[in-house]
Parts: sequence; structure tokens; C-alpha cells
Amino acid sequence: MTATDPAALTAALIRCPSVTPVEGGALVLLEQLLSEAGFDCTRVDRGETSNLFARWGAKGHARTFGFNGHTDVVPVGDETAWTVDPFGAEEKDGFMYGRGATDMKSGVAAFAAAAVDFVRDTPPDGAVILTITGDEEGDATDGTTALLDYMDAEQEQMSHCLVGEPTCPNHMGEMLKIGRRGSITAWFTVLGVQGHAAYPHRANNPLNGMVRLMDRLAGHELDQGSEHFDASTLAVVQLDTGNAATNVIPAHCTGAVNIRFNDLHSGASLTDWLQAEADKIEAEFGLTVEMKVKISGESFITPPGDLSDLVAGAVEAETGIRPELSTTGGTSDARFVKNHCPVVECGLVGKTMHQVDERVEVAHIHQLKAIYSRILKEYFA
Amino acid sequence: MTATDPAALTAALIRCPSVTPVEGGALVLLEQLLSEAGFDCTRVDRGETSNLFARWGAKGHARTFGFNGHTDVVPVGDETAWTVDPFGAEEKDGFMYGRGATDMKSGVAAFAAAAVDFVRDTPPDGAVILTITGDEEGDATDGTTALLDYMDAEQEQMSHCLVGEPTCPNHMGEMLKIGRRGSITAWFTVLGVQGHAAYPHRANNPLNGMVRLMDRLAGHELDQGSEHFDASTLAVVQLDTGNAATNVIPAHCTGAVNIRFNDLHSGASLTDWLQAEADKIEAEFGLTVEMKVKISGESFITPPGDLSDLVAGAVEAETGIRPELSTTGGTSDARFVKNHCPVVECGLVGKTMHQVDERVEVAHIHQLKAIYSRILKEYFA
Repeated sequence: MTATDPAALTAALIRCPSVTPVEGGALVLLEQLLSEAGFDCTRVDRGETSNLFARWGAKGHARTFGFNGHTDVVPVGDETAWTVDPFGAEEKDGFMYGRGATDMKSGVAAFAAAAVDFVRDTPPDGAVILTITGDEEGDATDGTTALLDYMDAEQEQMSHCLVGEPTCPNHMGEMLKIGRRGSITAWFTVLGVQGHAAYPHRANNPLNGMVRLMDRLAGHELDQGSEHFDASTLAVVQLDTGNAATNVIPAHCTGAVNIRFNDLHSGASLTDWLQAEADKIEAEFGLTVEMKVKISGESFITPPGDLSDLVAGAVEAETGIRPELSTTGGTSDARFVKNHCPVVECGLVGKTMHQVDERVEVAHIHQLKAIYSRILKEYFA
Repeated sequence: MTATDPAALTAALIRCPSVTPVEGGALVLLEQLLSEAGFDCTRVDRGETSNLFARWGAKGHARTFGFNGHTDVVPVGDETAWTVDPFGAEEKDGFMYGRGATDMKSGVAAFAAAAVDFVRDTPPDGAVILTITGDEEGDATDGTTALLDYMDAEQEQMSHCLVGEPTCPNHMGEMLKIGRRGSITAWFTVLGVQGHAAYPHRANNPLNGMVRLMDRLAGHELDQGSEHFDASTLAVVQLDTGNAATNVIPAHCTGAVNIRFNDLHSGASLTDWLQAEADKIEAEFGLTVEMKVKISGESFITPPGDLSDLVAGAVEAETGIRPELSTTGGTSDARFVKNHCPVVECGLVGKTMHQVDERVEVAHIHQLKAIYSRILKEYFA
């Protein structure tokens, strides 16, 4: 039989308008392809979200390689700014255009094509699992989490997993992700006593406490990095009074910070630190400081070892480049998978993701399928 | 002839709905009253603003006492929150209610009634000038300034002037104003480089510079007060980003401070200081800091002496209270008059000014007329 064409599959997926949480035909298409290739497929829909679980080989096999990815895409944005139909999968000058072209219909197409051809051409002593979600770009509450819940309940188990997100900043093959920093956002409201600007001693200006707090938070060195991680960062992202008058000291103001943290911290330890800083401001200024936090994800790491060696070796063999093992970047569903089994992320160049005229070099799709195929071959060798 | 009733005149003025810049009949009413009493009246309207100049006695007389006041009022605000018609001049329990009852139709009525009766009953060897504007509560660009420009052009001169603004915080007679602090507002825009909150090193967060700037400004002691003035004050009044996202470092943010300053500073010296602080932030953070200032008024002082002694003596004679000579409070048109001649401010209790159910104790209106009458009598004695 002929090899499955990952570029044609990418194009077919792009033509499914699967903006989160719409399924758009993408999972239906994959389920058909995988079923025909002998995968046991189960739709694991939860809430508004559609998800697909697919296994080839015996359930519970001790050697089970997993792939994870998503078919949902972010909205088109300003459609008039696109030079092509965002759901047209048009090819120009060696690039395929469309929403999801890099993030990450090409990644899903590459691992699905690799898996289908691999189990057909060299059936392994083991199993291959694909978990594909329709909600990675949204709240992600009913996406990969639902698939992992399903697997727990059904005693399905991946031994190792590769998430096919785009991981290369500029050049194919230059980077894998073996972990991610955590993310926490804290919102502060400082409550003081309103008054006339001419009589600050009769008021208690919440802005005085807010700027001191923010200056301290922004100036604090959280750490200098750890073995596998860059230094944690804190960004002041919001600060608002909404006071139109210049002769009035406002009664309250709001601010927010976002922290990306490495394995020297946790959401809880940072919450404690932020609360202590807020308490200090309360004590120093006699103000009330309210704080609300949201922990979007804890930091995690799959320490360099067999899995990263396998993946990095395959990348090097196919691209000639030894990839850096990185923990940079935003969150991905690897933050859920890491609770299930060792996980790495390896995919395409992500430069145009979420942008107008998102596009992928067609040759890279084929190269990525070759990398994934080599990983499967060597994993089960 | 009978004495002119300042309470009836206050009521008549309150019934003129003269919200800045509307004349509302108030100056027409006063012009008629003063003309009939032998004052030379001239309407000095400029732009949208109506103003009235009135002189009894010879132009250019070396002994000319002046009164200054305004008939315009601030808007009613939430009319449903009033328990009376804001332009009804209703009397209840010894109080007269209405917008402008204390600020300052009663003050204008008291000095107009005092002046009319004085020149009729005991015509002095000298002159009395009344300058009454219809724009003190607004921009004040075409109000008392226009009257003073007119007087310069016409070689009209006051030897001394009393501004009839409410000057007593709580009790009738407790305070005169012999000067005022200056006021300057500075608006800052900090321009940085937008970026993803996960990569602050690739952005340049304008909020970091803004909070450091504001913390420094708020924490700086401008002075500890001077002979006649309280310490200068600085209030941070605005701070805004308008950034809804928590994963984006904004490109710019804005902030504003208001400074009330004594005679140890000037608008220019403070502008220099603020600019130097802004420049420091630019240098320290590599940000661009734009600054715009508005000097609403310089500080000024009429040092304690003949004029304040005269006015304080009259207050003490009529109320039994020796008034404090103060320089506290916001701006008034005395900031313009002080360029023309020595000026003091002396008036009613200002507690309800600009508020819902603004009101004046009717007995106080009569008391204020008595104070002003005594000042005129002793000035020309």
C-alpha cells in the first residue's frame, strides 16, 4: 500500500472549520482514517468538547507509545487581513496556508499518518495510542483532561507520550520541550478612603499602596533559574483606576501580575508570597488589599533520559540538527499528560501560529512524519 | 429707606438657574439693583461668560474697596437625590436650600446688600467696586480674568479686595484666607514595548517604570510647610492601562498626579522636578516617558497686615470669634485678584458646597452682611 500523505491530511483537516469548541468534522475524519487502519476508536466527548481516543494493539500493553494533539484552532481574527481563505488550505510557494496550519493540524496529520503506516507496515509488539482533543485553545477543562479521565477509568495506559505541538522557534528540528514553566495570575484590589486631592491627609490613597506593591513585585528576583529551567518571571500586566478627575483621590484601584515559574516554586508557594507582600502593604499603608489568584498550571519536567534521547535522536537523523531540550514557552496539554506518563513535545516551527496567514512549509510536514515514524520504529525496535 | 435684605436677595439669585456658563438672570438682577443704588455698571462679557463690573464713586480714587464673587454654580448632580427644588430657595428649619446657597450666591448677596446700604446711608470719600463673574466654577478663563483685563484697560483700580467665597470649615467666623496654595497637575504616559507576559525580557514593560515613578513621587517630601502655609502635598490620582489580557505586557500606560504647593515652590520649579524624575525613569528603564503639565494656579499670600486685621476685627466684632488666617483649601478667583491688589477671602461655612441639598443658615447671611458692612465702615472711617 502507498504511504499516507500527511500534507493531504493536513489540508483536509484545515478545511474543517474547527474553531474551539466546534468539532468541524476534523475528529470525524480522523476517526474514519484510524478505524480503517485497525485502531479502536472512541469518542470521549464531555460538555461542549469533542475528543477522540484511538488505540492500535492490545489494551494495557507494557510498551505503549502515545501521541497527543488537538484539532481545534483559535478564531480567524480579522478575516479581511488574510490573503487567503483561512479554511482553504491553499498552497503557495511551498507553503500551505490556513488556520491551524502549524497549530497544530499538521502535527496531528503527521503523527496520524506515521502511526497508520507504521502499524500497517511493521506491526509492533506493543500498542500505539492517539489522544486528540477539540479543546486545547479554550478552557481545556473538557479536553485532554477528559481523555485522561477516560483512560484512568478504562485502565488504558500510555508508557510514554509525545505531544505534537509546534516547538521550534525558527528552524525545523532546533527544539524539543521536556517541561514547561507554571503560570499564575494574581489580581489585586486596593481599597482606601476617597478624598479631595488638596487634602491627602484626610484620604487614604489606594494608589500609593498599589504602586509600592507593584514596584516590589516587579523588582523581586524570584530565582536565577534551575537545572532545566530559565529564571522565573513576573510581569505587571494591569493597573487601573478609572478616575476621570484629577482633583479626587480614588477610593480603590486594581492591578494584576502574571508569573511564569520554574520548578523552584509552586502555585501554592507563590500564592503565599504574594499574600505576604499584600499583607505588608496593608500594614504599612493602613489600606485593605484584596487578592484573587488563578493557577493555570504548575511547572513540570520530564528529566532528560530515554524518551528525550529517542526523540532528539530521531530529529537529528531526519534534520541533521540536534535539538535543544527546552522548558520555555507557554502552557500546552503536556501539563495534563505529565500526570499520566513521561512526556515530551516535538513539532514544527511555530512562528505564524495564531497569526493572520498562518502557514506551514509543506516539506516540513513530510519531515515531521518521518521523525515520528522513526521514533515509532526505534521505540518498538 | 429700609435696609436691603441679603436673604431675600440670596433667594432671588438661587432662583436664577445660572449653572456655568449660563447667566440665568443673576447678573441682570444684580445690575438692576446696583444701578438703582447709583453704581456705574458695565457688563464685561467675554466668550461664553457673562461678567458684571460695578463702581460707586469716582474712578481711580486712591481709596477704593473691592468685592469679588461669582453667581455661577456647579451642576445639580443627581436631582432625584435632592429633597427640595435645587433652584427653589426653599426655607426649612432656619436654612435656605438650593444650588449656590453657600457657594456663593449668599456671599454675593451679602456684599451687594452691604455695599448698596453703605453708599446710600454713609456715602464715603472713596469708591466701592464690585466684580462679579459668571465663570468661577468652570475654566475661569473668561471670568474674573476678563474683569481684571477690563479694569486694566479702563484704568479702574481697587486698593484692596475681599473675595466672598465660603471660607469657614464648620463654624461661622472661624477662618479667613490670606493666600492659597498653588495647584499643578501632571499627566504621564510611559511608552514601552508590548509583549507576551511569558517573555518579559523580550518586552519592555511600561508599568515597571510607571510604578517606580509614582512610588517615588508619592514618597517624596516636598517640604515641611512655610511661615504661612501647610506642607505641600502630592496625590497620585490616576493610573491606567486598559489592558484586558493577563498574558500581554501592555505597550503603554498613563498616570497623573496633582500637587498643591506652597510658596517654597512654583509651577515652574515643580515642572522641572517632575521632568527630572521622568527623565530618571527613562534612563533607568529604557522607556519613553511623556509628560504634560497644567498649572492651575501659583501659590500666593497677602501677608498678615492692615487688610487681614481689618477683616478679622470685623468678623470678631460680629461673631465673637477671632478667625484663623489660613492658606488652606483649593483655588479661588483670589489667585487672579492677587495680581491686582492685596486680597483676602472671607465668607460663610462651606460644608455643603457642591453637595446635594446645598444650604445656608439664614442667620449667617445676615451676619455676613453685618461683617461686610462693618468692614466698609471701618475701611472708610
